[in-house]
Amino acid sequence: MKILVTAFDAFNKEPINPSLMMLEALPDELFGHEIVKQVLPTVFGESSALVLQRLSEVEPDAVLCLGQAGGRAAITLERVAINVNDASIADNAGKQPTDEPIVADGPAAHFSTLPNKAIVAALREADIPAQISNTAGTYVCNQVLYAVLHYLSETDLPARATFMHVPYLPSQVLEKPGVASMNLDDMNRALEIAIRVIGS
Amino acid sequence: MKILVTAFDAFNKEPINPSLMMLEALPDELFGHEIVKQVLPTVFGESSALVLQRLSEVEPDAVLCLGQAGGRAAITLERVAINVNDASIADNAGKQPTDEPIVADGPAAHFSTLPNKAIVAALREADIPAQISNTAGTYVCNQVLYAVLHYLSETDLPARATFMHVPYLPSQVLEKPGVASMNLDDMNRALEIAIRVIGS
Amino acid sequence: MKILVTAFDAFNKEPINPSLMMLEALPDELFGHEIVKQVLPTVFGESSALVLQRLSEVEPDAVLCLGQAGGRAAITLERVAINVNDASIADNAGKQPTDEPIVADGPAAHFSTLPNKAIVAALREADIPAQISNTAGTYVCNQVLYAVLHYLSETDLPARATFMHVPYLPSQVLEKPGVASMNLDDMNRALEIAIRVIGS
Amino acid sequence: MKILVTAFDAFNKEPINPSLMMLEALPDELFGHEIVKQVLPTVFGESSALVLQRLSEVEPDAVLCLGQAGGRAAITLERVAINVNDASIADNAGKQPTDEPIVADGPAAHFSTLPNKAIVAALREADIPAQISNTAGTYVCNQVLYAVLHYLSETDLPARATFMHVPYLPSQVLEKPGVASMNLDDMNRALEIAIRVIGS
Repeated sequence: MKILVTAFDAFNKEPINPSLMMLEALPDELFGHEIVKQVLPTVFGESSALVLQRLSEVEPDAVLCLGQAGGRAAITLERVAINVNDASIADNAGKQPTDEPIVADGPAAHFSTLPNKAIVAALREADIPAQISNTAGTYVCNQVLYAVLHYLSETDLPARATFMHVPYLPSQVLEKPGVASMNLDDMNRALEIAIRVIGS
Repeated sequence: MKILVTAFDAFNKEPINPSLMMLEALPDELFGHEIVKQVLPTVFGESSALVLQRLSEVEPDAVLCLGQAGGRAAITLERVAINVNDASIADNAGKQPTDEPIVADGPAAHFSTLPNKAIVAALREADIPAQISNTAGTYVCNQVLYAVLHYLSETDLPARATFMHVPYLPSQVLEKPGVASMNLDDMNRALEIAIRVIGS
Repeated sequence: MKILVTAFDAFNKEPINPSLMMLEALPDELFGHEIVKQVLPTVFGESSALVLQRLSEVEPDAVLCLGQAGGRAAITLERVAINVNDASIADNAGKQPTDEPIVADGPAAHFSTLPNKAIVAALREADIPAQISNTAGTYVCNQVLYAVLHYLSETDLPARATFMHVPYLPSQVLEKPGVASMNLDDMNRALEIAIRVIGS
Repeated sequence: MKILVTAFDAFNKEPINPSLMMLEALPDELFGHEIVKQVLPTVFGESSALVLQRLSEVEPDAVLCLGQAGGRAAITLERVAINVNDASIADNAGKQPTDEPIVADGPAAHFSTLPNKAIVAALREADIPAQISNTAGTYVCNQVLYAVLHYLSETDLPARATFMHVPYLPSQVLEKPGVASMNLDDMNRALEIAIRVIGS
């Protein structure tokens, strides 16, 4: 199986993005699957254009998008992406759209098509806190997942896709009392487990 | 230097107590210091009696008590212990005292005497979330710290003491959505760092 | 204008549901608008069938559904309803569906059609904490909103609709330390403000 | 009975302090008790000096200090005040002490002497969320309570004292998503109930 895995660069004044560190730690082959890695800019439009270009070039069997959801206490697998960009902070290009559709005349939402619940179960089996999330927000993460799922629904590509959000790293919460974090080793383990489930 | 390190057994229906796992992972000698390890029962009275007995037997230079503060997102170093047992749940012997003094006619509180802020700084330096806490609660943890500090203030023993609370392990929050946790490796690192600071 | 306002009966062992108390406190006419009130059972299927029946009988200009989102700190206006029932607790009839579509072959989601952001702005103007929410969950509340929005999108009815979630009442959090609540007077004010905005 | 009630002016960039609004709403006589009201500046040293001056002038039977603990979800009655000023933000005079004793050679702590648990029980009876707190922090609130309790323990004055912390008002959390608040009417009711219990 060929699996496209994406991550984002750092945003919102954070010096790092754990999803990027996870991507860098990921080997090019895992459990016999070919892993194609792609960093996306945390920019509306550019990120979705780039991931769609890579989709058509790579023709993967599965797409696993990674991103950070600072403040969450668990790995979260996103159930759905909705057709709206509504940013409370500017992206890395200074764009801050309000209530704009991602795809004009696109459906209100697309459900993720990879087995989120099986991934959550496997993560918990490995003692990694994990939950299904019913919102990927309305920022760049949601936009990328919507773009991917919409493209796959509109084309003949057989790939399935989902989004995995990770918490802050411990180093990111040193000055954020009360905010949860997760160790990078556990995040890396989580990514390998997700790929194992996706490829099985 | 000789350092007495204590931890508690599991309580409140949790199958494990990370402080106990940390104690078990701790070597008998670290940074040139002799480490004396003691497990305490999560029982009012018995725990404090045992730690005081060990204090007089071991005659340590420092006492570092470990315990779990489920729900906190960071390692917390306790600033103070107060002279009251007031339990919202029963201990492991079924005791649930309400507003009882730990030491009759003892002072309202004792401050910890080991350098909490230096420990917090060293933990953060190592990218481990850490905070000073101003309450060790009114359960068995606080009672042990109060008992130790009171005993040391009443005797000629030169030992200094403090209490380090750790969050839940990831395995303990699988069914607790939204609750923070910390990796055992990070907890073990935190303990070694605390001992390094205490011994310096 | 004719406005259909719905609320739910109590669920999940809570003795009361603030949305029901809000509905009972609501007059039959407000700001010159006719208010039609309907209590819905917290039961999958029955609740949506009843609200659709009332929709066709009443032929309202607007539908405002109320429900409780215990644990949230603010009034939340729901942006979207998704086509899935996935219950973590049983409903009042003992049903607990897992990953079932609300409408077979229905779209993944419908966006609310009443002006959520104008309602949020008016609530804040009145010093009532309010937020846009991007998930109504996957329980009975989401199911009712999805059913209403789907029905309206499929028929020629011109009505617009949204969902307003309210926090716990203070009386509901007496034994839930750390959990936010909101005063019933503020909830009642919020409902009147929402109706004023909807009718303007 | 003569009851001295204190509150603080606004601090930390908040335009208001609910404790001050509660004090202003309080009548000069309640349940047959004489109420003496005193606003304190949110300034280390000045606040404690002023409250001690008022204590000797007024010779009250009870002292109830009010303050804001933004972020808490319930009214909290403080069990204990500790002998340390350790400020994470500057006070209204720009002072930010670190680990300084409030009273040189004073005891580590004083317990509150008014019946906190009876007040909590009465508040809950009135459907107002209330808890015992084991830390009043290490800012100006704790300093005032420590100063009052220390002065009373050192003199022949028979007065008893405690501290009641209140949450944010709804208007204070409009831009603080997820943060709990409490209605001013409920705070005012809480203050009257506390005075009723204190005077009984």
